[in-house]
Amino acid sequence: MAHITGVDVLDVRFPTSRELDGSDAMNPDPDYSAAYVVLRTDEGPDGHGLAFTIGRGNDVQAAAIHALAPHLVGRPAPVDATALAALSSDLVGDSQLRWLGPEKGVMHMAIGAVVNAAWDLAARTAGLPLWRFLATMTPEEIVGLVDFRYLSDVLTRDEALDILRAAEPGRAGRIEHLLANGYPAYTTSPGWLGYSDEKLATLAGQAVADGFTMIKLKVGGDLDDDIRRMKLARQVVGDSVRIAVDANQRWDVDTAVRWMTALAPYQPYWIEEPTSPDDVLGHQAIAEAIRPIKVATGEHVQNRVIFKQLLQAGAIDVLQIDACRVGGVNENVAILLLAKKFGVPVCPHAGGVGLCELVQHLAMFDYVSVSASTENRVVEWVDHLHEQFVDPAVVRDGHYLAPTAPGFSARFTDDTLANYRYPDGPVWTEQNAEGR
Amino acid sequence: MAHITGVDVLDVRFPTSRELDGSDAMNPDPDYSAAYVVLRTDEGPDGHGLAFTIGRGNDVQAAAIHALAPHLVGRPAPVDATALAALSSDLVGDSQLRWLGPEKGVMHMAIGAVVNAAWDLAARTAGLPLWRFLATMTPEEIVGLVDFRYLSDVLTRDEALDILRAAEPGRAGRIEHLLANGYPAYTTSPGWLGYSDEKLATLAGQAVADGFTMIKLKVGGDLDDDIRRMKLARQVVGDSVRIAVDANQRWDVDTAVRWMTALAPYQPYWIEEPTSPDDVLGHQAIAEAIRPIKVATGEHVQNRVIFKQLLQAGAIDVLQIDACRVGGVNENVAILLLAKKFGVPVCPHAGGVGLCELVQHLAMFDYVSVSASTENRVVEWVDHLHEQFVDPAVVRDGHYLAPTAPGFSARFTDDTLANYRYPDGPVWTEQNAEGR
Repeated sequence: MAHITGVDVLDVRFPTSRELDGSDAMNPDPDYSAAYVVLRTDEGPDGHGLAFTIGRGNDVQAAAIHALAPHLVGRPAPVDATALAALSSDLVGDSQLRWLGPEKGVMHMAIGAVVNAAWDLAARTAGLPLWRFLATMTPEEIVGLVDFRYLSDVLTRDEALDILRAAEPGRAGRIEHLLANGYPAYTTSPGWLGYSDEKLATLAGQAVADGFTMIKLKVGGDLDDDIRRMKLARQVVGDSVRIAVDANQRWDVDTAVRWMTALAPYQPYWIEEPTSPDDVLGHQAIAEAIRPIKVATGEHVQNRVIFKQLLQAGAIDVLQIDACRVGGVNENVAILLLAKKFGVPVCPHAGGVGLCELVQHLAMFDYVSVSASTENRVVEWVDHLHEQFVDPAVVRDGHYLAPTAPGFSARFTDDTLANYRYPDGPVWTEQNAEGR
Repeated sequence: MAHITGVDVLDVRFPTSRELDGSDAMNPDPDYSAAYVVLRTDEGPDGHGLAFTIGRGNDVQAAAIHALAPHLVGRPAPVDATALAALSSDLVGDSQLRWLGPEKGVMHMAIGAVVNAAWDLAARTAGLPLWRFLATMTPEEIVGLVDFRYLSDVLTRDEALDILRAAEPGRAGRIEHLLANGYPAYTTSPGWLGYSDEKLATLAGQAVADGFTMIKLKVGGDLDDDIRRMKLARQVVGDSVRIAVDANQRWDVDTAVRWMTALAPYQPYWIEEPTSPDDVLGHQAIAEAIRPIKVATGEHVQNRVIFKQLLQAGAIDVLQIDACRVGGVNENVAILLLAKKFGVPVCPHAGGVGLCELVQHLAMFDYVSVSASTENRVVEWVDHLHEQFVDPAVVRDGHYLAPTAPGFSARFTDDTLANYRYPDGPVWTEQNAEGR
């Protein structure tokens, strides 16, 4: 039996702020970064995972992953549902570390990175891409992954089992469908706030030409600018392409309602992160005020308990899971089940670095084993930094191609690890030598 | 003008798990710890603050404080309301670090420790204990401390000003009252889950003899045990002493209702942390089901946005601020104003290490400048580790004595820093040498 023999943690950062890629109303100059973890084993494959950050504090995130090492080193390599459930439970349940959350922020993202690395290891051991590895599991195995604590008032284990059993017919056909057609994507590439109107128009037109049926624009800096940009985008893409907008938590409730009312003539499909990700009742008030525009959130929603309430309150019309914000695959399975229970479509957040690579697997698992539908479901696509990965996500004709390589797709190339290591990799030492 | 010249961060841990002090249903063996920060200056006093943790992960908390140093070193020492507001705003607003929360968990507690250290520095510079330094501020200065982002749907700056102006008459009299009589306390010392029935009864009787009119028991391990312990405590203290109970997040909604219904015959005054601190709607459901038993929470409530919703939803009857969980004095001022707006009494969480020392100042400020009342208000008291502080909190006859020494009372003695430093202080190296 293989064992985990060591935990490597690396601080990897990309100087994305140089180009204003990724600029939005709350994040003007991100340097996309990863606190990267490798679970080393004495035999069989290693496991690779990451926590995504946007620069400063990536060292804090790395320290949090280090703090989990005593739970890992010497442990049998987790290769099945039971072992992966036990690992998640041990990490979340550490009674002293729990004080630092509980189940939120730096410590919880560290758990997510480690849990995802363990799933990578298990899927590699099985010789399957993560989404297909998950799809081999029985409903009983899948509910065994989930921590129902704090969920039982809206979703019991038995209800979850019913959901999964109802989706069993047709699983093989849906796997074939994904292998043949991929999973629908939308693109955020045209819409960063730092881009000129000309660049926005060019990229929006290119998105349609590339087969996307939905794009997204960042908003929330200046209302007049946003009206002009939204109008321009609508002119470029026409009425049949959906345009979502994203305020990145910039507004209070009243501002969100006022701003979206002003943008309504240009038919925004959803408003994403209109206010604090913690504000369930605020999202509820916004959603009631701006229908039929949909409300979406999730990339900063800390755990299943907040998602539960967003669904209970009817506060969101679109649920955006993120592969690296919550406690890894196990908690995202819980969230997918909650969304299905409430009939809310899941449209995952991606972008950053590695988020597309990871979350595509969860969307495909959702389609195969949980929701059994791609209707009104799209995964975000941002065409940044994919070249840094051994098994990069690929989008063709507006669809993510189904991954076929074993694992969870978050493994950096050796060159990436050598070049972008912070602060001593050459990309950073040369940048500093230039006096920046 | 004085400047901040350096930031010292120390990992300080106390081996409290040896005696089961502090044991409860979620935290069976805490080692009370502090990520301790000292803001060094070139002239005038330094500032001392801490983030409280319960052992493992205190190093991660310390790393998060380190990450804030670039905002601090070289900065003029903040000595007035304007500078303290700017410091809080700069720390919370760091767009890259914000990704690690936002405003929650390890990174937010780090901000709280630094902000509190800055307030300590400012109060020392003014030659006043923190509560009196705050009481010198005008309503305009006080609202200037508050970040109203995400609050404006329930509390505007103007409403906050009205609250503070309404409390201006009688401030001098209330200060005199505190100096003469102190602030009411209750004690948790009898109620730790790890204690025998005999120890519980002895300590409960002692608490009444010591002048306390309220005690608290930990619950949530085993219902039969809790019924027996609650019955015993009620027999010992009689009907006129309030008994609060505290489940430390152990239950789901249905379990909380069932458990409290079983304890109801023994008249519990409040149930604290019945479920996840993130579950606003869960607390609302529990509160509706178990009235007249009150619902209390706060020690793990991550920020003002969750408190806002708990109040909006009528989900809590008692609001428990914590000096070290949120973003320091500034955010706690916002929370005190929210509580006043909704007419919910604030009964601060304390205990741990340093929490009594810090939070007594906030309760006294609340009485002087915000709520103007001590009715149904009590500050938790746990008689642990006060000897580690230069200016320890003191409770006499069931009341916290008003602090008179300048500062925020969170400064450790030099001996404490030498003895309990982790992992190299003698308390830890000797413990390890004993093979534990």
